Amino acid sequence: MKIARQWSISALGPEGLRIREAEVPQPSAGEMLVRAEAVSLNFRDKLVLENGMGLPLEFPFVPASDMAGIVEAVGAGVTRFKPGDRVISTFSPGRIDGKGLGDARHPPYKTLGGYHPGVLSEYVVFPEDWFVAAPETLDAAEASTLPCAGLTAWFALIETGRLRAGDKVVVQGTGGVALFGLQIAKAHGAEVFITSSSAEKLERAGKLGADHLLSRDGWVERVLDLTADHGADHILEIAGGPGLAHSLNAVAVGGRISLIGVFEGFDITAPAAPFLLKAPTVQGISVGHRRALEDFVRAVDATALKPVIDGRYGFQEADKAFAHLDRGAFGKIVIEF
Amino acid sequence: MKIARQWSISALGPEGLRIREAEVPQPSAGEMLVRAEAVSLNFRDKLVLENGMGLPLEFPFVPASDMAGIVEAVGAGVTRFKPGDRVISTFSPGRIDGKGLGDARHPPYKTLGGYHPGVLSEYVVFPEDWFVAAPETLDAAEASTLPCAGLTAWFALIETGRLRAGDKVVVQGTGGVALFGLQIAKAHGAEVFITSSSAEKLERAGKLGADHLLSRDGWVERVLDLTADHGADHILEIAGGPGLAHSLNAVAVGGRISLIGVFEGFDITAPAAPFLLKAPTVQGISVGHRRALEDFVRAVDATALKPVIDGRYGFQEADKAFAHLDRGAFGKIVIEF
Amino acid sequence: MKIARQWSISALGPEGLRIREAEVPQPSAGEMLVRAEAVSLNFRDKLVLENGMGLPLEFPFVPASDMAGIVEAVGAGVTRFKPGDRVISTFSPGRIDGKGLGDARHPPYKTLGGYHPGVLSEYVVFPEDWFVAAPETLDAAEASTLPCAGLTAWFALIETGRLRAGDKVVVQGTGGVALFGLQIAKAHGAEVFITSSSAEKLERAGKLGADHLLSRDGWVERVLDLTADHGADHILEIAGGPGLAHSLNAVAVGGRISLIGVFEGFDITAPAAPFLLKAPTVQGISVGHRRALEDFVRAVDATALKPVIDGRYGFQEADKAFAHLDRGAFGKIVIEF
Amino acid sequence: MKIARQWSISALGPEGLRIREAEVPQPSAGEMLVRAEAVSLNFRDKLVLENGMGLPLEFPFVPASDMAGIVEAVGAGVTRFKPGDRVISTFSPGRIDGKGLGDARHPPYKTLGGYHPGVLSEYVVFPEDWFVAAPETLDAAEASTLPCAGLTAWFALIETGRLRAGDKVVVQGTGGVALFGLQIAKAHGAEVFITSSSAEKLERAGKLGADHLLSRDGWVERVLDLTADHGADHILEIAGGPGLAHSLNAVAVGGRISLIGVFEGFDITAPAAPFLLKAPTVQGISVGHRRALEDFVRAVDATALKPVIDGRYGFQEADKAFAHLDRGAFGKIVIEF
Repeated sequence: MKIARQWSISALGPEGLRIREAEVPQPSAGEMLVRAEAVSLNFRDKLVLENGMGLPLEFPFVPASDMAGIVEAVGAGVTRFKPGDRVISTFSPGRIDGKGLGDARHPPYKTLGGYHPGVLSEYVVFPEDWFVAAPETLDAAEASTLPCAGLTAWFALIETGRLRAGDKVVVQGTGGVALFGLQIAKAHGAEVFITSSSAEKLERAGKLGADHLLSRDGWVERVLDLTADHGADHILEIAGGPGLAHSLNAVAVGGRISLIGVFEGFDITAPAAPFLLKAPTVQGISVGHRRALEDFVRAVDATALKPVIDGRYGFQEADKAFAHLDRGAFGKIVIEF
Repeated sequence: MKIARQWSISALGPEGLRIREAEVPQPSAGEMLVRAEAVSLNFRDKLVLENGMGLPLEFPFVPASDMAGIVEAVGAGVTRFKPGDRVISTFSPGRIDGKGLGDARHPPYKTLGGYHPGVLSEYVVFPEDWFVAAPETLDAAEASTLPCAGLTAWFALIETGRLRAGDKVVVQGTGGVALFGLQIAKAHGAEVFITSSSAEKLERAGKLGADHLLSRDGWVERVLDLTADHGADHILEIAGGPGLAHSLNAVAVGGRISLIGVFEGFDITAPAAPFLLKAPTVQGISVGHRRALEDFVRAVDATALKPVIDGRYGFQEADKAFAHLDRGAFGKIVIEF
Repeated sequence: MKIARQWSISALGPEGLRIREAEVPQPSAGEMLVRAEAVSLNFRDKLVLENGMGLPLEFPFVPASDMAGIVEAVGAGVTRFKPGDRVISTFSPGRIDGKGLGDARHPPYKTLGGYHPGVLSEYVVFPEDWFVAAPETLDAAEASTLPCAGLTAWFALIETGRLRAGDKVVVQGTGGVALFGLQIAKAHGAEVFITSSSAEKLERAGKLGADHLLSRDGWVERVLDLTADHGADHILEIAGGPGLAHSLNAVAVGGRISLIGVFEGFDITAPAAPFLLKAPTVQGISVGHRRALEDFVRAVDATALKPVIDGRYGFQEADKAFAHLDRGAFGKIVIEF
Repeated sequence: MKIARQWSISALGPEGLRIREAEVPQPSAGEMLVRAEAVSLNFRDKLVLENGMGLPLEFPFVPASDMAGIVEAVGAGVTRFKPGDRVISTFSPGRIDGKGLGDARHPPYKTLGGYHPGVLSEYVVFPEDWFVAAPETLDAAEASTLPCAGLTAWFALIETGRLRAGDKVVVQGTGGVALFGLQIAKAHGAEVFITSSSAEKLERAGKLGADHLLSRDGWVERVLDLTADHGADHILEIAGGPGLAHSLNAVAVGGRISLIGVFEGFDITAPAAPFLLKAPTVQGISVGHRRALEDFVRAVDATALKPVIDGRYGFQEADKAFAHLDRGAFGKIVIEF
């Protein structure tokens, strides 16, 4: 029986996060034992530690949803992978392709590091269906950033947004989803406008290829000016709350706003006039399905897209990693094993 | 020189609406002279009379956007119609197909009876491009209801919503757009839920084919119960304001909400959680283009859809027609010439 | 241990089809034991018996892919069904939603009654994933016709074809897929043209709602005449071989041709000019996925669509049923248990 | 009255092509006088000179459809352009957006340099609707290559094909459409396979960014090998005739084949099996509409795409330009004024 060290809490509250040891079972039929090489953090992981987000956590609870690792052993009937394969996890296990899971009364939120156990552990044993082959061109830390933040941006811009070269795309902020949005949009030939309240972060975004660096104040007017009033074809609306009103003013006629965020507590408010007159599509985004993650992985390899990692921490330093997340990161925070 | 009687105002305010006479020009190249047989009213017509809705009206101003009539004469180069043809107007002249008009700063609102002159006149002279052949199976009064209310429902449910048989569709209220929504959805094999605060109106909606008649209070719970928690695949959200919150609770995972209305003054408010977790599409609807109106006309003929007219008034009775509109109509109000 | 009677062959050739007995295993984890109530036949079943169609059959081989039955017992971990539930099989096990299975060199053809065992057996034990809930409004014989013929027509016209009311649809012939095409198109408000070389079959198709009954000779000209040269928006091309040339002449500008059939031996030939000038979409159809079958089932219930069964045979009469299939059926042939 | 020199024929046959002078009218209402700066040739131009392609040519007939120039004067009511603006022509005048023109019996082929007069003239007078703003980043010669060859590739890959990064795209040959296809696909992050019978042309294609250079013989096997049997997600099928059979063998499950060419005389032949089993979409392409050309123009500016010109000729050298076209060009042939 293998023993894995893992970060866990035994009750709600991030202050209880400790390294504990747990027994790792043999993989049953259809399952795989995977040795983690890297885990990336999302803001949601912090919220789950703090308040559980209404999820039915079992303690000791291991946080985090996004990992890259190596298949160590496979159970009977596993066909998609073999020992030695490099894999990444999927954020919503069981969502393979097409239609989403759950129903109107019970919206799906069955993710790793929430409804399911998390991945901040030296080993995990999960069904093979929960994994995707890692990109060949990324190291484990980079690969670990794809399942949630990367796929969210891809699903918004490409799977549902069907971006094309020349489209004018606004990306709000410089967090993980935003920088993936910038890079994915540039990989498809779009013209990218990025907003931030930090001049230094804007400068870094410019080095990643952003065409227009906009202060958060007054970005709507700037977008209208820079596009000769055409407006934005696609806006990654990450701010939530009253931000949608700004996006509706900036969006092009018939344009698209992707609503992204974990701000479940906040209400959205928006004026009706631009919603009716410009007839935009406002699309809620809940990460995405496994087939889209596979598409994204091969796009990463084809375009040499390199995820932006603001901080790499050792396995022992998970608390520092969470603290960095708390301060706000430029891109992603990763824990390497 | 022909003389046309027409209803017009010489200053803002519906109390000034009078029958006046106006000279009718000969149609220039590309134009047609059309004799009106029927005009249908929209709630918007009342708002334009009252406050102009910020539009650059020229006085005397003739209201109304939707008409059916007979081509009396055609100018040079007209190819799509000939004298004697039965036609209906288009709500947004010049919007032929595909992408909408205008830009992000100047959203398009160039409609008949607003930016352009209205149609509550015995004769109009407009470019041939502004007309569509009337359905063969409708009389003039019925045909006049298609350009705005009919097309709005068609554009929401079919052109953008791509409804299919078995879809669960919620229609809010029993106004003109709502009843077209009910009929169009039934013509495509959908299961229709209609809401109203009036038991009598619900009963009438049932006779038109609505499958489920729901009191306005508590309709969300009823939809969830009746669909075994699946929720609504498509909601025609006509209420505006806080209504979107209800629709977001009732919508199916991956479902669609079409936002329809003229409630420009009101804000939309909605909770973020269902928007993110169920990932619905919220689509603003600004009527639609001419090609979709042509599609709708042939669908009307193929399915024998009969628009619901709550009141037919003579040309002299336009004031009574507007008063009926003010009280709230079950379907459409039409003025016959 | 249960014993099931089943029709099987011990070597290629339909003449060897016999009732034999086989042991029925207990359902393992994720599996279900289903008692068959009805099996419908497809032309393909005959080809498999005759020549195996290049598939890796194991003998004794049980033919047929489409069944309706009752869940008798479920294995561990089954969540979607319970004993007593009425179910139908899926044609391509494992194809749940979205993207198709297999790859360019090994196109997927892993169906029941081919790559997988068939269903002409009193009992089957298959994974729960291979089943879908039966429609509430159909008896077992009717329900058994949906998995292949019904879904093929639905996938062509609705899932990929996005039919709308008023569309002009040509259905070739009066076989199982064709009559489902007719009924599905009518349920969505389309105008349907059906072709046959038999006046009697055309008359029967008329009673099912076909708008235009066309002799197989000269149908292209008739469609052009009857549509005032518009042409057909969607053609279910079932004839194969040189038939595509006719369809390309009849299709509307920007229209759609769904290519359906099991005529693997035949070549398709077509003139390039209408393909380039009218820019139609020609779409190969390989039945469809489980999610679409679920959509179709609820559409059947919502629209009261009744599959057309040309012959119902007892379990003992499978040979007569195959003989009927051989003569050509108006709709479907079903074996009831 | 202005006099324009223009190349024209007075009877069918390219040998009669001469420079003649013609009077240039003043632009009427809605028209513009445009001074040509460059004209690019298509293979079709050669066929029209040789045999008229069944089009109703008026003599003297001026060939060619694609030009870039400067607006010299505008007629009354022109709003989209003003003197001094740089413009390019549209291939199918009047096709603005959405649905194609014409009907099933009379497929649309109303192009410049065919049904309409051509552009190999120092000045043309056409409706403003027939023009689009030229890209800012291209010179006139480059800009003149967009209306037919460029838009065809864009319409196939992007407007209908909705390409995404990581897609595997096969481009057949190194003609004008093919090289645009290569460049557009690369601008969207695709992986491009190009075929040619010339090693030298393949090498040049590699310098333009093609990922895989394939000899025309055996390209199907190479694509299957290089993609680990996945196959091609999108194939620009330019060869026509029996080539479709190869493309059907190379296409991925659920992939797309765009059928492009002017080979109206040739039949298409293809095996039915891969068409049915892999369920690809085969899409006829007839250039595209004006809105897509506008989208493409802004994509060219956003991505710095530079059209490939194999030969630039002076106005006097039109005969040499046609001879080059006849020999086969790597990309486009342009005549500069």
